[in-house]
Amino acid sequence: MEIGGKLDPAVIRRVQDSFDRQGLMAHLGAELAEVKAGQVTIRLPFRQELTQQHGYFHAGGTSSIADSAGGYAGYSLFPEGSAVLTVEFKLNLINPARGEWLEAIGRVIKPGRTLTVCQLDVWGVDGEQRIHVATGMQTLISVKGDA
Amino acid sequence: MEIGGKLDPAVIRRVQDSFDRQGLMAHLGAELAEVKAGQVTIRLPFRQELTQQHGYFHAGGTSSIADSAGGYAGYSLFPEGSAVLTVEFKLNLINPARGEWLEAIGRVIKPGRTLTVCQLDVWGVDGEQRIHVATGMQTLISVKGDA
Amino acid sequence: MEIGGKLDPAVIRRVQDSFDRQGLMAHLGAELAEVKAGQVTIRLPFRQELTQQHGYFHAGGTSSIADSAGGYAGYSLFPEGSAVLTVEFKLNLINPARGEWLEAIGRVIKPGRTLTVCQLDVWGVDGEQRIHVATGMQTLISVKGDA
Amino acid sequence: MEIGGKLDPAVIRRVQDSFDRQGLMAHLGAELAEVKAGQVTIRLPFRQELTQQHGYFHAGGTSSIADSAGGYAGYSLFPEGSAVLTVEFKLNLINPARGEWLEAIGRVIKPGRTLTVCQLDVWGVDGEQRIHVATGMQTLISVKGDA
Repeated sequence: MEIGGKLDPAVIRRVQDSFDRQGLMAHLGAELAEVKAGQVTIRLPFRQELTQQHGYFHAGGTSSIADSAGGYAGYSLFPEGSAVLTVEFKLNLINPARGEWLEAIGRVIKPGRTLTVCQLDVWGVDGEQRIHVATGMQTLISVKGDA
Repeated sequence: MEIGGKLDPAVIRRVQDSFDRQGLMAHLGAELAEVKAGQVTIRLPFRQELTQQHGYFHAGGTSSIADSAGGYAGYSLFPEGSAVLTVEFKLNLINPARGEWLEAIGRVIKPGRTLTVCQLDVWGVDGEQRIHVATGMQTLISVKGDA
Repeated sequence: MEIGGKLDPAVIRRVQDSFDRQGLMAHLGAELAEVKAGQVTIRLPFRQELTQQHGYFHAGGTSSIADSAGGYAGYSLFPEGSAVLTVEFKLNLINPARGEWLEAIGRVIKPGRTLTVCQLDVWGVDGEQRIHVATGMQTLISVKGDA
Repeated sequence: MEIGGKLDPAVIRRVQDSFDRQGLMAHLGAELAEVKAGQVTIRLPFRQELTQQHGYFHAGGTSSIADSAGGYAGYSLFPEGSAVLTVEFKLNLINPARGEWLEAIGRVIKPGRTLTVCQLDVWGVDGEQRIHVATGMQTLISVKGDA
């Protein structure tokens, strides 16, 4: 399956259902913006409740949506009856995380039966301006189970 | 200064003040549990608002407190008038993140004038049981500024 | 300066001179294949002396050329009188490292006065076939000095 | 099995046999110094052939022995008929890598049936002096096969 290609609506529904069960995404105010084959985008609008000490987005918010975006990017390629777990991830915070919202894009680089590797990128969006705020890498494992 | 040793109360206050300005820590319900020289502990009590799709703590919550714990561990060793930024971090999620609360310990491995490297560890605490849920590494940079 | 663009011949010479002083590159048999602005390619032909226990390239060889490729990609953008040091790097080994040679490409994602972040990719090349064997990220620091 | 405890001599032999098949370890001049349960030490004596441009050990040499030390630390806990592959590793280079030799210690933090996580540490040894030159983390996967 081509990364970035169209997905079966049933798969998109499974991703959305799983996302909706993540209490943290709702608590942060994150939304699932786009679900393609092996590529998922999550948006996080700015709120005072998401800041670090200088008033920008806290790296924890950046990581939260980056981790979920990568996790669902991998999950979108898994066979039914599989669940996804994050094995590890690494994030470089390359610019101050500010803007009207953050946009995290998780994209599968290497799909696999057991392990899947994703690239993670987070952008700070302010009107027409998009600043690359974080880039990283994530390893996922597919296990038997739901979601 | 010995890592894990006692700090000047003025430094502890600077750490607490900076922590209190992190909107995300309050929003997640995290508390600064202990501040020693180069070693900081943050606690995050379990709430439905912090979960991933299987009902455990979301890796985003784990990362948020790990990043702040490491950041303040480094910051506690910086001279006054310095601020701390996370350059990058990497986390391995080694056990399901469950328990009454998570406890993140950031500990400076290599202090430096410009860069500081921390070890990050997160434990899931349930009564007397402590499970190691995440371990990682973080690079910090000291910049001029407040907090 | 545009990443991947042409460099002043004096800068290319500085990169080549520094590369030639790396005893390890010669010992492994690695060659500097291409030097562009913020993007450097290093090739490593297969030899029995570079293997792990299954006869493929050892991850140490993969890392060696990935680290040097990223280091020189950053260095190519530094002002004269600067030296480059690797702060940290992370590599995911996504396919068995085999082929006639490995090709490591280091590419600057975020240039900076103090810190520079590179993407690292390594390919196994066999005739017309190119297999993505490793992908990663690297943080560099610019310090005063030579090379 | 306790990490750092004694191993069955047959397991030590399997580790040594596999190490001896790594062409790169011989080419670099690395030696297997100690094999305990889940903890392996590899030594790399200084040679001009291992340097970077400033005359210190190249990060590629540091990584090579760190990766092998961690790999064999994990492998020492695997059941017979298993092989080990590195999924990913991350290394922070915290001090200049110099000394009469480098000593890499890989130590299992989290053993697992499929995935194993190791801590990696490398020391530069000069007479009585030991300097911590690198610290990192590694994820291994156990697959069916030999070594």
